[in-house]
Amino acid sequence: MPRISNKGLAMPESPIRKLVPYSEQAYKAGKKVYHLNIGQPDIKTPEVALEAVKNNTLEILEYSRSEGSEAYRTKIAAYYAKNNIDVAATDIIVTTGGSEALLFAFGSIMDVDDEIIIPEPFYANYNGFSTASGVNVVPVISKIEDNFALPPISEFEKLITPKTKAILICNPGNPTGYLYSEAEIQQLAELVKKHDLFLIADEVYREFTYDGVTHNSIMSVKGLEAHAIMIDSVSKRYSMCGARIGCLVSKNKAVISTALKFAQARLSPPTLAQIASEAALDTPQSYFDEVSTEYVDRRNTLIEELHKIEGVKVGVPKGAFYCIAELPIQNSDAFAQWLLESFDVDGETVMVAPAGGFYSTPGVGLNQIRIAYVLNKDSLIKAVHILKEALKVYKD
Amino acid sequence: MPRISNKGLAMPESPIRKLVPYSEQAYKAGKKVYHLNIGQPDIKTPEVALEAVKNNTLEILEYSRSEGSEAYRTKIAAYYAKNNIDVAATDIIVTTGGSEALLFAFGSIMDVDDEIIIPEPFYANYNGFSTASGVNVVPVISKIEDNFALPPISEFEKLITPKTKAILICNPGNPTGYLYSEAEIQQLAELVKKHDLFLIADEVYREFTYDGVTHNSIMSVKGLEAHAIMIDSVSKRYSMCGARIGCLVSKNKAVISTALKFAQARLSPPTLAQIASEAALDTPQSYFDEVSTEYVDRRNTLIEELHKIEGVKVGVPKGAFYCIAELPIQNSDAFAQWLLESFDVDGETVMVAPAGGFYSTPGVGLNQIRIAYVLNKDSLIKAVHILKEALKVYKD
Repeated sequence: MPRISNKGLAMPESPIRKLVPYSEQAYKAGKKVYHLNIGQPDIKTPEVALEAVKNNTLEILEYSRSEGSEAYRTKIAAYYAKNNIDVAATDIIVTTGGSEALLFAFGSIMDVDDEIIIPEPFYANYNGFSTASGVNVVPVISKIEDNFALPPISEFEKLITPKTKAILICNPGNPTGYLYSEAEIQQLAELVKKHDLFLIADEVYREFTYDGVTHNSIMSVKGLEAHAIMIDSVSKRYSMCGARIGCLVSKNKAVISTALKFAQARLSPPTLAQIASEAALDTPQSYFDEVSTEYVDRRNTLIEELHKIEGVKVGVPKGAFYCIAELPIQNSDAFAQWLLESFDVDGETVMVAPAGGFYSTPGVGLNQIRIAYVLNKDSLIKAVHILKEALKVYKD
Repeated sequence: MPRISNKGLAMPESPIRKLVPYSEQAYKAGKKVYHLNIGQPDIKTPEVALEAVKNNTLEILEYSRSEGSEAYRTKIAAYYAKNNIDVAATDIIVTTGGSEALLFAFGSIMDVDDEIIIPEPFYANYNGFSTASGVNVVPVISKIEDNFALPPISEFEKLITPKTKAILICNPGNPTGYLYSEAEIQQLAELVKKHDLFLIADEVYREFTYDGVTHNSIMSVKGLEAHAIMIDSVSKRYSMCGARIGCLVSKNKAVISTALKFAQARLSPPTLAQIASEAALDTPQSYFDEVSTEYVDRRNTLIEELHKIEGVKVGVPKGAFYCIAELPIQNSDAFAQWLLESFDVDGETVMVAPAGGFYSTPGVGLNQIRIAYVLNKDSLIKAVHILKEALKVYKD
């Protein structure tokens, strides 16, 4: 029997995926499950995007250009200009989701066994893209006590080797909800310039910032043009995760021309989704205002309710729609499974994402969970109530 | 300035892409260009697929499952059953085009520096996927004199090393139009079983077989279950290249569970395109009959017209919609560029794909071009006439 590759064997499984059989079992047992585990918002996709797809007049569903249609990239550039990011259409490659943008970035700047430093906890699929690309993640721990702020630059410098090619941040952060300050972005900029590294920023949650704090893009830092690679996506911004449209943005021409070769090999990003994404750029500001109000309300509710539970530690996220909560337990993997398998309050339970999968350092974050506040306020209150009752009786 | 990866530098550029500036120049000069160079059919996408997208009632464009929706995979399995391929929905992973299916297959079964044997000329992007995956293509030459039939198995055996992990075929072939016989498929099956290799077959042109010859899938070979990986796509079948929906199919459970980990990392295939692709499976047989009649007519016209040109050698393709033609020239790269830059018949010229890019062995195929017969009959006649006139005056 021919064998699977070592790379294939090393590919990590999604930390949430392991729980799916238990959630299916819970459904079969007739339980209602509140999903705090997923990043799929319940917010409606803008009408303007859905209508554009319904009204399309294509007779042949053709390839687009490998780098994305000219019209769409031009419109993306205009959107960035409004966000204080000065890039041209030619600095943009449209990708199949932020996922593909990360794969193109990794492939363009790293070879096998190269290293990328990522503050942890981080978006779990960065592990998958690293394994797929044959590169090694070098984690630097950010702490719940600091609300997951940028670790001291000295901690990064300790980890830099000749194999280090890049630093990757997610801003605002999944799973932390942390929003990097201008000073923190500036520190990272100085660091990558000093050591001749790339700085990759996953900025897919750009619009999801709260309490009047503004987002600081790495693309707005003067003098960082050769180093900065931005990853973006329509998934969260317009609640259209299923479109699978993102982009890679850089003013470094060599990065763009190299990423384009990867893009050409796979021919083109999806055409229908580009139609939706281009139209989505006309979404009225009122949509974002409503969404923002809704998320702030949810966040406030969630944090308030979590604070009522003894022994639970949680920061106040300033962006995205996630938070990491530390629970008075030993092992959140086992706890999450137990919630689905063996616990309910009046036939209802909750599914959470164990945070261990968001750390690369073994053994860290085992008493933490990630909560996505993508449910309405009433559901959040009920879900946290279930969590509270569960912690009263749970034994590790 | 931080540096691009060696992998990125090694990524091949599309052999056609190099000609794009010259075609743009031709357009600017007011020339009409007949595109024999592309695999984008001019055939209309089935109504049933386009209507399904227009009539969709989604309010949130959500992720689908990473392996593709259950409903779609079940319907794909039923389509295969009609094609004498007995697979279950669980043997199928829906991908973003056949491109991603190839990447998942390569990642699942090969590590860096592993080798894959491919009869050449082959689809040029196999080079890109190999470079992206860090694996080496080992070509085995198939000859125009043999109409690009399978090279003798002894030629494959000579090339097998401990690093050889797979053999990849495209059936029917892009760029050759060759359709492997049942005996040839059986020979390959014996070979991979003997040497414990995988056999990957890109069968995206399954429906495009002519002259009453039937297609032989590797999935229909008894005893090959552990070795066979099929790559498929809706792109050509339903003339919906821009959908970006394909699939990877295997009865080897380890291959599927490994490919699924790659699929999970990128979250999901595009949702709108899955709606179109699922509906496309209801395309009436009359659509395929018309398309087949059209392509046979085009092929016959093309071959007939090419045979009228002195010094041109061309086989008779039995499938797909390409053929390789050998021209009485030295360098088809230069010739293709010259056609766009310096030649026209009454303001019209032709764009062809130089065949060198479809070979991995340096220096082979330089006097060949690939012609895609994706234009209507009248255009094909005009295009070949231009080629004929060009060859009268062209000097290498």
